[in-house]
Amino acid sequence: MKIGLIGLGIMGYRIAANLAKAGKLNVVFDRTQDKMEKFVKEYKVAKSSTTKELVESSDVIITMLADDNAVKSVVEPLTPLMKGKILIDMSTISPTLSISLARKIENSGGLMYDAPVIGTSTFVEQKKLVVLVGGPKDKFDVVYDIAKETASAVVYMGSNGMGLYAKLVNNLLLGSYIAAVAEAYNFGVRAGLDPQQIANILTTLSSARSPTTELKAPKLLKEDYSTQFATKHMSKDLEIISREAQNLKVITPISSLALQLYKMAEALGYSEADFISIVEVFKRLSPKT
Amino acid sequence: MKIGLIGLGIMGYRIAANLAKAGKLNVVFDRTQDKMEKFVKEYKVAKSSTTKELVESSDVIITMLADDNAVKSVVEPLTPLMKGKILIDMSTISPTLSISLARKIENSGGLMYDAPVIGTSTFVEQKKLVVLVGGPKDKFDVVYDIAKETASAVVYMGSNGMGLYAKLVNNLLLGSYIAAVAEAYNFGVRAGLDPQQIANILTTLSSARSPTTELKAPKLLKEDYSTQFATKHMSKDLEIISREAQNLKVITPISSLALQLYKMAEALGYSEADFISIVEVFKRLSPKT
Amino acid sequence: MKIGLIGLGIMGYRIAANLAKAGKLNVVFDRTQDKMEKFVKEYKVAKSSTTKELVESSDVIITMLADDNAVKSVVEPLTPLMKGKILIDMSTISPTLSISLARKIENSGGLMYDAPVIGTSTFVEQKKLVVLVGGPKDKFDVVYDIAKETASAVVYMGSNGMGLYAKLVNNLLLGSYIAAVAEAYNFGVRAGLDPQQIANILTTLSSARSPTTELKAPKLLKEDYSTQFATKHMSKDLEIISREAQNLKVITPISSLALQLYKMAEALGYSEADFISIVEVFKRLSPKT
Amino acid sequence: MKIGLIGLGIMGYRIAANLAKAGKLNVVFDRTQDKMEKFVKEYKVAKSSTTKELVESSDVIITMLADDNAVKSVVEPLTPLMKGKILIDMSTISPTLSISLARKIENSGGLMYDAPVIGTSTFVEQKKLVVLVGGPKDKFDVVYDIAKETASAVVYMGSNGMGLYAKLVNNLLLGSYIAAVAEAYNFGVRAGLDPQQIANILTTLSSARSPTTELKAPKLLKEDYSTQFATKHMSKDLEIISREAQNLKVITPISSLALQLYKMAEALGYSEADFISIVEVFKRLSPKT
Repeated sequence: MKIGLIGLGIMGYRIAANLAKAGKLNVVFDRTQDKMEKFVKEYKVAKSSTTKELVESSDVIITMLADDNAVKSVVEPLTPLMKGKILIDMSTISPTLSISLARKIENSGGLMYDAPVIGTSTFVEQKKLVVLVGGPKDKFDVVYDIAKETASAVVYMGSNGMGLYAKLVNNLLLGSYIAAVAEAYNFGVRAGLDPQQIANILTTLSSARSPTTELKAPKLLKEDYSTQFATKHMSKDLEIISREAQNLKVITPISSLALQLYKMAEALGYSEADFISIVEVFKRLSPKT
Repeated sequence: MKIGLIGLGIMGYRIAANLAKAGKLNVVFDRTQDKMEKFVKEYKVAKSSTTKELVESSDVIITMLADDNAVKSVVEPLTPLMKGKILIDMSTISPTLSISLARKIENSGGLMYDAPVIGTSTFVEQKKLVVLVGGPKDKFDVVYDIAKETASAVVYMGSNGMGLYAKLVNNLLLGSYIAAVAEAYNFGVRAGLDPQQIANILTTLSSARSPTTELKAPKLLKEDYSTQFATKHMSKDLEIISREAQNLKVITPISSLALQLYKMAEALGYSEADFISIVEVFKRLSPKT
Repeated sequence: MKIGLIGLGIMGYRIAANLAKAGKLNVVFDRTQDKMEKFVKEYKVAKSSTTKELVESSDVIITMLADDNAVKSVVEPLTPLMKGKILIDMSTISPTLSISLARKIENSGGLMYDAPVIGTSTFVEQKKLVVLVGGPKDKFDVVYDIAKETASAVVYMGSNGMGLYAKLVNNLLLGSYIAAVAEAYNFGVRAGLDPQQIANILTTLSSARSPTTELKAPKLLKEDYSTQFATKHMSKDLEIISREAQNLKVITPISSLALQLYKMAEALGYSEADFISIVEVFKRLSPKT
Repeated sequence: MKIGLIGLGIMGYRIAANLAKAGKLNVVFDRTQDKMEKFVKEYKVAKSSTTKELVESSDVIITMLADDNAVKSVVEPLTPLMKGKILIDMSTISPTLSISLARKIENSGGLMYDAPVIGTSTFVEQKKLVVLVGGPKDKFDVVYDIAKETASAVVYMGSNGMGLYAKLVNNLLLGSYIAAVAEAYNFGVRAGLDPQQIANILTTLSSARSPTTELKAPKLLKEDYSTQFATKHMSKDLEIISREAQNLKVITPISSLALQLYKMAEALGYSEADFISIVEVFKRLSPKT
């Protein structure tokens, strides 16, 4: 079985590296020549000059791309070539788009899986990603055997789109939660509490503590907004959630408001910064006492 | 040192029991005769016919009462009697009220501590409460020695009111978080995900998982709204937060909206139910597809 | 100049009638045969068996359709036939969609105008619509001469899409305003004010009174939710606004929240009712005292 | 009948002037000597050295003060002196406070009316205020005869507090409406509409147009935030509404969110500016395109 991967961004590069080390990667493509050369040199796999060529020489194609537009422009032209092949898209995109691409690939005689991930680039390096998979049950083992090289959990979520819906459930919660963490932190600071003690509440004393507060509390204390997950990406995901909520006819008052606050953080200049920088919205937009 | 306790409600009764078993309780008072009789019979401590009498016969007085009105009407008349005594108020009330009572007690030559708790009645029984303490540093050891009989952590948070502000930081986060958990759960169900898998995300796969989602996910699955912490109490705490935010001039958009949603849950009949019943707001108020 | 109209719904029928009476309508089409027959019989204009036929026999084509999907499926197939012709789309749809259709029509050598309206069916009958027009300035007079037969104001708003953006500005304001009117009314009732006096404030005493409060205050008093403008249509428009706000990168906290409340009104069964029925959200979801 | 007025602020000074010109004012008090001297010199009425003296020499006492704290500290000490006298409080304060003061005055054998106003200082000069009156029906004519000298409408709203609740209904609507106007304006500008045309929609074309949009649209166009009604006063009124909503157990999602946005405007430096300056929140906190 030949495996190709398209998209050597921050996540894709490291996922590809894990696969190469496990002997499960044959060929890569990235539109940026330099990235592709670097990877090929380091990991001794082939490169393709076009995505078409990559698809033709592979049985399984993995994509890890930025957003709906990227996936649409890269994957859509490839759908007629997918007969007998499997596409595993690890990007976080709109389930609606993913499902429509899956239909086209099926019509060409191939299979598609949505397999978005929970976790940052550090998680990839530690092989601790969580991969949420949607698609036909019977070839899930193919996805599992590949994804396990880069993940601590590979979970089958249901038919096409269900991996992405599961990811959106996670990010709806995470985005709203971090907004609440920031609001609580700023409330505590302004009440006169010792910031260290607020961090203590967020990470240890509170029953709403989580792995995420352990990660973010030190960043709050040091105003360290170096990026683990960018504000603009949380905005993008909450925007997908908002549009899907329209399709699903579900109310999403909390995450809709959180989206507005992340947009404000972007307006304050924190688009590329870590999404915990939303705390600056609370700090700067609370009147001085 | 003689210790008295006022308020044998669900929490107060169990805290008093822990103290009695540790030999650190001399006398109790509750306005409901039956509760008082039951406790006295079971734990062999004295009872008082009035709060005044209890204060006069105690060095340390513990209060565990429902809300601002209860604390104001019980504690305020006692302040002139507090010379040389220590009041430990474990109720969750407005910091502003608590600070003003602390001033009055100081003026009478006594000391007051605000010592609200994180945790439910089950936590008391397991001696696993978290007690957040505000008040003069030099007698904190007295509070510590008493509270440790019922808690796994007794944390000094600063001057008067700081214990309560710390509690509000926790409940601002917790109340907003559970609203987001409910929104995420309903979004996932309506997207067609297996509810068990959504619970799996909330408790295991998500980096925003917490001890609280472990407690609440089974309740979501079974629509079991039996009370661990009542919706009306979360509403009350978020109302205190909203008023304190006015005093502190801090913005609290997320928790302000969460308060509206808990009020809606109360309107749907879930005032006395567990606050995870807020999920019914999302279920019932999302249009049918 | 031959004029055809597609879409004999509640609005379209009445607009067509005004044009026919003014001698400015030659042919109509509706997918529902009965509506078309009725109109043709009453107003003595021709009918077309297909939209293609209508376009081929007309110089100016007016469309008045339900939503993005309807416009997309009706107009898109017609774009190659538009050489030398003018399309006036009076539907309220996404500006993004409208602009992309305008580009296609231009490429075929035709012109398109977005010309959505402010006002209900009663306004059409009284020829008191407001028509907001986007498209090439130089043929605006054609649009004006037609639209004036059914409107008291026909306003040029700028290039393609600007008519629709103007309509969205109106509905962003109107939808948020009516939500606020409902909130204020319910607050007043629960405070114990005489509902007649609240209506008096809304329509006469307040500087935020408007033609809309004059229309809606009697409906609030009588709980008369007979439809002037349906909740589902306000939801649809606020959903378009939410998606366009994503494109424009503007924050829209108030209308985003209003959308959630209209969705709740739909869940309560008021989807087809007048959008003032949002007051039931406030009534039913405020806890009993 | 002797009439005294306490509080020569921007509103109080002009109201007092109208009364003096009508021969219906005998004595004034303000804690700022200069204001009082200026008024006395210009309008030839007596001044009092204390509020107590003013009350003793008057049959009807009018108060026009800044907020709850001011009314509480000025009026409460006067309540024992009110036998046979009438207090007309024109301040916008919490109904709950007003009702409790009314009870105390009744117990002293006097009467109190809450009589807050709609309108700015310009309205006073034009005698076009709206006065909303709560209190005992039988002496309403006394209030009416005085208030009509400065108002175009003096409306009896019901028992004590009802004047204030009516005022809050108005400001709940007005505060939410202006937030929506600002959101709509910014949306339109960012969509590329001509600001003049947006103003045209807000003041002429929209059915949600109002006397307030006529007043504020020119300010939006010129970014003229000179104060007609200060942001901090709208914040204060929305804070009262939020607290009263807690008492009344009504949901107020829209005005609660509007309050957060006015707080943000204050944080941006617009506390003393006109409340239409809330538009800067939308402008500055929408990401650049």
